[in-house]
Amino acid sequence: MMKTSLSEAAPVSGALRWASQQQWIDEALERLLPGEEASPEVIHRAMRYSVLAGGKRIRPLLCLEAARAIQEETPGIEHPACALEMVHTYSLIHDDLPALDNDDLRRGRPTCHKVFGEAMAILAGDALLTLSFELLVRTPGASDSQRVQLVRELTSAGGTLGGMIGGQVLDLEGEGQTPTASLLDGIHRAKTGALLRASIRMGAILAGASESEMGALSRFGEHLGLAFQIVDDILDVEQSSEALGKTAGKDAAQEKITFPAVYGLARSHEMAAEQRHLGRESLKLFGHRAEGLHALADLIVNRTA
Amino acid sequence: MMKTSLSEAAPVSGALRWASQQQWIDEALERLLPGEEASPEVIHRAMRYSVLAGGKRIRPLLCLEAARAIQEETPGIEHPACALEMVHTYSLIHDDLPALDNDDLRRGRPTCHKVFGEAMAILAGDALLTLSFELLVRTPGASDSQRVQLVRELTSAGGTLGGMIGGQVLDLEGEGQTPTASLLDGIHRAKTGALLRASIRMGAILAGASESEMGALSRFGEHLGLAFQIVDDILDVEQSSEALGKTAGKDAAQEKITFPAVYGLARSHEMAAEQRHLGRESLKLFGHRAEGLHALADLIVNRTA
Repeated sequence: MMKTSLSEAAPVSGALRWASQQQWIDEALERLLPGEEASPEVIHRAMRYSVLAGGKRIRPLLCLEAARAIQEETPGIEHPACALEMVHTYSLIHDDLPALDNDDLRRGRPTCHKVFGEAMAILAGDALLTLSFELLVRTPGASDSQRVQLVRELTSAGGTLGGMIGGQVLDLEGEGQTPTASLLDGIHRAKTGALLRASIRMGAILAGASESEMGALSRFGEHLGLAFQIVDDILDVEQSSEALGKTAGKDAAQEKITFPAVYGLARSHEMAAEQRHLGRESLKLFGHRAEGLHALADLIVNRTA
Repeated sequence: MMKTSLSEAAPVSGALRWASQQQWIDEALERLLPGEEASPEVIHRAMRYSVLAGGKRIRPLLCLEAARAIQEETPGIEHPACALEMVHTYSLIHDDLPALDNDDLRRGRPTCHKVFGEAMAILAGDALLTLSFELLVRTPGASDSQRVQLVRELTSAGGTLGGMIGGQVLDLEGEGQTPTASLLDGIHRAKTGALLRASIRMGAILAGASESEMGALSRFGEHLGLAFQIVDDILDVEQSSEALGKTAGKDAAQEKITFPAVYGLARSHEMAAEQRHLGRESLKLFGHRAEGLHALADLIVNRTA
């Protein structure tokens, strides 16, 4: 309802555009997660608690907007979009466990293991990872070749060799080590960069991007991933826990290798702007079709939480 | 080398047949897991430590033998076979964590978290699950349609709705509850039955089974899954930790819902034999092509560890 009226109104202001799309993503997540009444209820409650906690949905938005840079409408796009959010959420649930980052607060609420216990949090993470691959191979309107490509993309981005889990291990190992530029680069490319880049590539795969379009979007993804992480590190220093909805100042406390730790705050701000600029350059090929991606990049770089 | 000489010799005794196939599976696992020298080394060491600990490889063997019931040679079969062993191993690593079953011993060695710490054990499990889907979509010689079917099969068998994680949750919730036949049935069908059934179906998918062949193999898988679990429960009562390579007597100590707890030991033995018989009946369609599956079913029912 809200969606229809918004798409008819022109021009739509940035904030409203995202609110409408986030709502569309939330509705899809709501629909694609098992219901709370399905047995065994407790794990489905835990999964829904963590996924439907109202995150920014940056990965699904990137997936949607990358597809829009290729074509107006991409049927089935909610499947990779939601799979990406589920993989992101599983990684947060496991990262927050006492054995890893030991965090009590996430998206402004108690973390999954605080509410459901550690055993259920471990299993809820496992279940979200499993479900994300199920969504990909059940993407409506996709060819089997596209489904296979989507799974390949997500396994590479989520795995140990340059992917999310590999980055998480480097991050844990890096605690207390001398922060160097090359260590920092390796950690962030893998830990957050790979999944953000995959978000863009997965939207492009389903939309049928050409090789040159895929190349340009991949470059955009790398710059945006770097910009995202620089801003994330800056916010951890500059913002309060209340504003972030998660514990602030943890990086310094845990002696994490971050952009402010390696380059200082002022230079980190400049670097984020540089990556934003390079990202913009990568999208020239798409002209006004990339408006959504440009706006999203601005949102990511200018966010305060 | 050993394989060639064995396949030329006739008749091959049961024990030698399995030793040769297990070796073939171990070599494939060794090859398909990231090397210990790949960065970040520690997680690859943890993954290899747990997978290459010399399990019985029952799921890969079922996958191989199901394919053989359809056709002599199935190229690429090592991919689903190894994916199944990796999913099985990830579930053991997470189950053994202090927050779940809190076990120190597995396959005769200290559990993953005992050697690498809890954080790395959680991430190693996550990584094995991710890698298993990667192997499926990279199965050589398979069509994309088969790859998609393989992923669907594994996500259903591994998920929360009647799959392995769902069974694990029911099992945890069942501790200390009155053991009833229906609760027992629900737990075991999901917790171990689904993945064993999927092992057979995945072999059949890659070998190009017809609908009637798939139906027969699925029924065989259900009976075998039940027989496997009954025997597992019996062994936990009758065997020593040393013989099992894992802590014995844990079911009773944790008040788990098991076949001996519901039906008594004598009736449990009968039930295993009944399921073995029904499994045999399901395979009639295949004649001597199912020799391997018959021998494997005997191995599972007659095992002592």
